[in-house]
Amino acid sequence: LAGYGRVGLALHRLILSQRARIPLRVVGIQTLRHGSAFDQRGLPLDPEFGPLVAPIGEFLDRARPEVLVEATTLQPATGEPALEHLLAAFERGRHVVTANLGPVAHAYAVVAHTAQRSGVQFRIGLPLFQAARLPLPGAKVAGFRAVLSPASSLMLDALRAGRTLADGMEAARTLGLAEGDASYYADGWDAALQAAALANVLFDARITPLQVNRRGIAQLTPEKLDDLRTRHKTVALVARGRLTTAGVSLRVRAEVLDVHDPLASTRGASSVLLLDTDLAGTVGSVVDSAAEQTAYALFRELVDIAG
Amino acid sequence: LAGYGRVGLALHRLILSQRARIPLRVVGIQTLRHGSAFDQRGLPLDPEFGPLVAPIGEFLDRARPEVLVEATTLQPATGEPALEHLLAAFERGRHVVTANLGPVAHAYAVVAHTAQRSGVQFRIGLPLFQAARLPLPGAKVAGFRAVLSPASSLMLDALRAGRTLADGMEAARTLGLAEGDASYYADGWDAALQAAALANVLFDARITPLQVNRRGIAQLTPEKLDDLRTRHKTVALVARGRLTTAGVSLRVRAEVLDVHDPLASTRGASSVLLLDTDLAGTVGSVVDSAAEQTAYALFRELVDIAG
Repeated sequence: LAGYGRVGLALHRLILSQRARIPLRVVGIQTLRHGSAFDQRGLPLDPEFGPLVAPIGEFLDRARPEVLVEATTLQPATGEPALEHLLAAFERGRHVVTANLGPVAHAYAVVAHTAQRSGVQFRIGLPLFQAARLPLPGAKVAGFRAVLSPASSLMLDALRAGRTLADGMEAARTLGLAEGDASYYADGWDAALQAAALANVLFDARITPLQVNRRGIAQLTPEKLDDLRTRHKTVALVARGRLTTAGVSLRVRAEVLDVHDPLASTRGASSVLLLDTDLAGTVGSVVDSAAEQTAYALFRELVDIAG
Repeated sequence: LAGYGRVGLALHRLILSQRARIPLRVVGIQTLRHGSAFDQRGLPLDPEFGPLVAPIGEFLDRARPEVLVEATTLQPATGEPALEHLLAAFERGRHVVTANLGPVAHAYAVVAHTAQRSGVQFRIGLPLFQAARLPLPGAKVAGFRAVLSPASSLMLDALRAGRTLADGMEAARTLGLAEGDASYYADGWDAALQAAALANVLFDARITPLQVNRRGIAQLTPEKLDDLRTRHKTVALVARGRLTTAGVSLRVRAEVLDVHDPLASTRGASSVLLLDTDLAGTVGSVVDSAAEQTAYALFRELVDIAG
């Protein structure tokens, strides 16, 4: 388990609570802040950490896990150190389940190819990406529309309530849905990173967040939202991806929506994904993306790999 | 293929269009109106029908399919003749995929048990029921909230537009989403049937539509909806099911919702299902339920059985 923040901790708690029926155990935990812990019989929730065992390859050689769970803090600009973690695991023949989207947004094609060549599995343990992986035999996904950034949605909620973007950021921080600089969310970078990751997975787009046509929500005010409200309209930060003959088009925009639009129904920690398909029509998912649900998404992938 | 209305025809078209990659074929079609048609090499879209071969057992003995697709017209009060069709197929060791919810709403426990005892598969080929079947290892579904009846939703759309329930019914008929008497939809029977089916599948509730605590939308008027709209509220016909220590509670009501509620986002032929789970939070699905998407849901199950 690389990373032991809210998600890592929630996953460990879940594993321990389910172990009577599903015998998974955490044999190593690596965290920059506390150091490293190891126990082949399974670590407790609050283990004694020794000094940090780095680089990650050394940690893996000592922990000898079947699967590396990557749940470190996202470094949006590069996808590191998660990318290095993944490649080190693949090199050692370990499966990987990631809650960190960095490597998916920045280098999905390389990661997926390396995992395949190494004969191991690479899974994304995030509720929205599980929803995107519906088995649709014979059908093609032509595009997606999605509200991907809970922190940005909470900022819009704050504006709608007559408060500020900073208030929304504070709420997101409290829920563990945001960290670092508010502009990362207000300027649409969070949504762009997730949109790039989705396009890479759905369309093999080989795109990075920097290539997403992106605008944020910083120009919005409570007054503008109030005016829209009287016209039964609302605003959401919408990511749209589409596979065209010219390639993948991808953009993030604060869009004015009818209040009854499925994309207008996100609140708090939920995300919405609408897949436009040829045979199944529009297939939509609404998922909760707080730490507990992300932990469960990781857990599902672990169970599936163990399967 | 029992039943050759919009769904049956759309499924046959889909099978033919995909046969280069997925070698399914329709070896028999049974329809009350046109009679029966057989060809072991696969029937064309517009076959020559001979006299009706009945009862269904005789049809199955002559068609010798691996799977019976049940897509006859629903008889809401009893689930027949679909129920008889299913049991006849199981008796002959045939798998069944159904688009007809009658047997699921009226006798799911018996049907599932009989299929299992016969060593065959029983699948529900409807988009909403596929969404309800998310693999959630270790997790429990505690309840559901859903908007299940597209025809009722279209009636509410009509009222919102200042027209009548009858206008909405007409729109639903045109889209192939309703037939027979408008009161079946306006009084909430359609939603109750689907709610009972969902509760039977999710909770083994052994409930029938008659036992659903049900009220419809007949008392609503354009004026009432307009008044709600000025208060940023809306109405949907919502089914709620919950597993309690005292058993399964199930009700269908026209509920006043905040316009941003995910249940308020249905329009036209779409349905919404929110599953409340212990570990995965709320997992929601928005699906299109017109004939083409139902045909594709049947197709997915056929591909899965062929596996």
